[in-house]
Amino acid sequence: MKGLRLHNSLSGDKEPFEPLHPPFVGLYVCGPTVYNDVHLGNCRTFLTFDILRRWLTWLGYRVRYVRNITDVGHLENDADDGEDKIGKKARLEQLEPMEVVQRYTVGFHEVMQRLNILPPSIEPTATGHIIEQIQMVEKILEQGLAYVVNGSVYFDVQAFEKRVGGYGALSGRKLDELIAGAGAGRRTLEGQDEKRHPADFALWKKASPQHIMRWPSPWGEGFPGWHIECSAMSTKYLGAEFDIHGGGFDLKFPHHECERAQNLACTGQGGPRYWMHSNMLTVQGKRMGKSEGNALWPRDIFSGDHPLLPRAYSPMTLRYMMMQAHYRSTLDFTPDALEAADKNLAKIREALGFLPHLTGSGVSDFSWSSWQDSLFEALNDDLNVPLACARLLEGLKHLHQVAHKQAHISEEDLEALRSFLPRFVEEVLGLQIQATAPSDASALQALENVMGLLIQLRNEARVSRNYALADQIRDRLQKVGIQLADSREGTTWHLQGSSSVS
Amino acid sequence: MKGLRLHNSLSGDKEPFEPLHPPFVGLYVCGPTVYNDVHLGNCRTFLTFDILRRWLTWLGYRVRYVRNITDVGHLENDADDGEDKIGKKARLEQLEPMEVVQRYTVGFHEVMQRLNILPPSIEPTATGHIIEQIQMVEKILEQGLAYVVNGSVYFDVQAFEKRVGGYGALSGRKLDELIAGAGAGRRTLEGQDEKRHPADFALWKKASPQHIMRWPSPWGEGFPGWHIECSAMSTKYLGAEFDIHGGGFDLKFPHHECERAQNLACTGQGGPRYWMHSNMLTVQGKRMGKSEGNALWPRDIFSGDHPLLPRAYSPMTLRYMMMQAHYRSTLDFTPDALEAADKNLAKIREALGFLPHLTGSGVSDFSWSSWQDSLFEALNDDLNVPLACARLLEGLKHLHQVAHKQAHISEEDLEALRSFLPRFVEEVLGLQIQATAPSDASALQALENVMGLLIQLRNEARVSRNYALADQIRDRLQKVGIQLADSREGTTWHLQGSSSVS
Repeated sequence: MKGLRLHNSLSGDKEPFEPLHPPFVGLYVCGPTVYNDVHLGNCRTFLTFDILRRWLTWLGYRVRYVRNITDVGHLENDADDGEDKIGKKARLEQLEPMEVVQRYTVGFHEVMQRLNILPPSIEPTATGHIIEQIQMVEKILEQGLAYVVNGSVYFDVQAFEKRVGGYGALSGRKLDELIAGAGAGRRTLEGQDEKRHPADFALWKKASPQHIMRWPSPWGEGFPGWHIECSAMSTKYLGAEFDIHGGGFDLKFPHHECERAQNLACTGQGGPRYWMHSNMLTVQGKRMGKSEGNALWPRDIFSGDHPLLPRAYSPMTLRYMMMQAHYRSTLDFTPDALEAADKNLAKIREALGFLPHLTGSGVSDFSWSSWQDSLFEALNDDLNVPLACARLLEGLKHLHQVAHKQAHISEEDLEALRSFLPRFVEEVLGLQIQATAPSDASALQALENVMGLLIQLRNEARVSRNYALADQIRDRLQKVGIQLADSREGTTWHLQGSSSVS
Repeated sequence: MKGLRLHNSLSGDKEPFEPLHPPFVGLYVCGPTVYNDVHLGNCRTFLTFDILRRWLTWLGYRVRYVRNITDVGHLENDADDGEDKIGKKARLEQLEPMEVVQRYTVGFHEVMQRLNILPPSIEPTATGHIIEQIQMVEKILEQGLAYVVNGSVYFDVQAFEKRVGGYGALSGRKLDELIAGAGAGRRTLEGQDEKRHPADFALWKKASPQHIMRWPSPWGEGFPGWHIECSAMSTKYLGAEFDIHGGGFDLKFPHHECERAQNLACTGQGGPRYWMHSNMLTVQGKRMGKSEGNALWPRDIFSGDHPLLPRAYSPMTLRYMMMQAHYRSTLDFTPDALEAADKNLAKIREALGFLPHLTGSGVSDFSWSSWQDSLFEALNDDLNVPLACARLLEGLKHLHQVAHKQAHISEEDLEALRSFLPRFVEEVLGLQIQATAPSDASALQALENVMGLLIQLRNEARVSRNYALADQIRDRLQKVGIQLADSREGTTWHLQGSSSVS
């Protein structure tokens, strides 16, 4: 079996993955700007790198996964103008900016938890690393690759290009075209006049008097530019050179291009050796966006409360659906795709359900070990998760035949499968099957429904004088820790808090 | 009805609560040092202030609740010696300190969520406010109330006492006794020699070469003292003077005493106008502690896996149990107390269950409005939650009589009660009754158990050729979104992800 190969945006090729200091792997992923709820597109990115981290862990690497929280410096316009996104929200909602940060950070964590996207090893915030960012800006100034204007500091792209070179290597943009493009569409916006060159970008911005988020710096009170935080935090926690940097496709330019230039200017190293970019999510073939009126949030899927959706779907169904396109391809969201995911997830759940009850005999008429290899090969081939899922289902189809005595499996293969399958599904694909896919709310709802049904059956048994059955229901419920209480108003039930009640 | 009165540790008296800028209330609570899992004692403190925040909100105040995360500077010994708690854990577990911080922050949030302790409005970290802490230390130095020794900065308690005064006012400790006490037990520990006076405390500590967590400062590379973070963060987010500061009893000295001195030295204001301290939790009459071998963690309660416990209890049962002592009294943890809480919680759940089915008629033979006032009075009397709970149960007892036609309730009272009761229980007491008390895991377990029982009933029906009943069970389950699948291995079930499946 070949080893892991990953597509490197920097070379444009799939390359064998060789970590700098095995078994350690340093992975940095750009996290959310917490001024808004994360939408499905964001979730897709975080899911991609969740599976990458899980797969690296399965392969035996010890992953330090850093995913930041952007809580300052991300301006409305990706260029260096417009209001700070968090500052603006704070103004609109009449909150302290950090209240905005807290609200959307809590919401983000909740969504990640429901999608079973594991927390990163470190989750640093931009405001928590102002000192480190200032230090980095100072170093870039020392190198003569930035300049100070009116209390702001800008990265000097032309000087960088002359002395270091490689600006545009990641995104494929050419400096000349950037100038032309910027020139054509250029508006006279605050800060733009201060730049020597339209491709220059802010490392530190002077705070206007009404700007709340501000810190002292050698250049006066201000706040960091958007790009510098990731350079500072990845360097602090992973080193000047580390293994993998991931993020959404849309971050390639300007964010990652600028980040790379900053790293090179400051440390002489480009930061990550592998750059990975997750493609976008479309909705029924169209780019998803607020202005397009087709934006989707996880809560829409979990509640079913959306014009596109016939019903609610569980977080695991959403997770599985988002795994059905390769991370470098566009993923098209459709209700049918969700429905298909739900069905396939049910097949996986079913197989894991009957697996312990199967019996092995004779010789397998299916090569389970090469099937297992084929799953690994798919993941090793630039994390081809949809292919791994398709092959997983092929195997399960065969397993279904075994269950129906239409095929054989040897004792040895069965034992291996019993150990492998649940781990692969839960640890690598991150599908919560045993602890059940439905959200907490829907599991509780299901419990309510089923209890309602049992109480109804018991009442009917009593009406038809089948007291034996009625009592049986009550007694057996009690054995599993559920107490029924009859009153004139009807029967209520109460969970005694634990299944260990005898 | 009288207004809210709160016990102020500073005066030692219950005082009428008058916020500085109504309807706004600024509340600061010392959060966890994230080097370890939170134990039941910590949970009690956070629960106390969760209810305070809920009650203030009910009263119509707009609360900005700041609860910090201590991720640097808290040394093993509350005096200024010993290793940094997080640094030590990082060394022992061979992790980057921020990995330790992340692990226990995630765990802390999980426990808070299960206990339905709402997230604060802002959750600032000490490492996220190094600049603000340095600025505060600089101001205290400017005031001549601190001194620099070998790259560390210490607060000069004697100078403070001479020029400002009031050190010890919060904790009731006298400076003379502190000197005597410190002198008697004093060991020659790193840093102690540098102090001019044994009661002095560190504002900034020089980092030894092996210390990982370090930042540049005017005094060289180092890290903040433990106490300065709360002064810096409460001032930043709530102002130099604000309403309430809460924390565990054990934080009164030295932490809060030092914090108050720092505030006074730096801003001329003492910070909060009301200091509130939550008392400790004992286990069967003994102080809880690791060395005592009787420490309890929330997971012990939720799993039932602890020598003291006969079974598992839900997070809501634990929450209710911890509400059964006044916050300024010791709360004694016993299995009986948990069992009693479980029973009383069941009564509340039962009442909320039959409340919608009651019918009103004639004149109430119970004064529901004065009963409601009595709940409010209990909470207004320095947050007497156990008294409010007791009175709540008294009312429910009467409601039970109504349900059994042994008492009357007027239409008007019933309507008021239907609007009031669920809100009071869920919004003020924070008891999740509808969304059900059991933890997710135990709800899922219960669902598994109940489904097992239904499948068994269906099988028995088939064996006894009662196909009507067997089919009914299958069909009705399908209606509530649960699919049964029969195979030779038996029957499995599958939740279709949503209760809205038709």
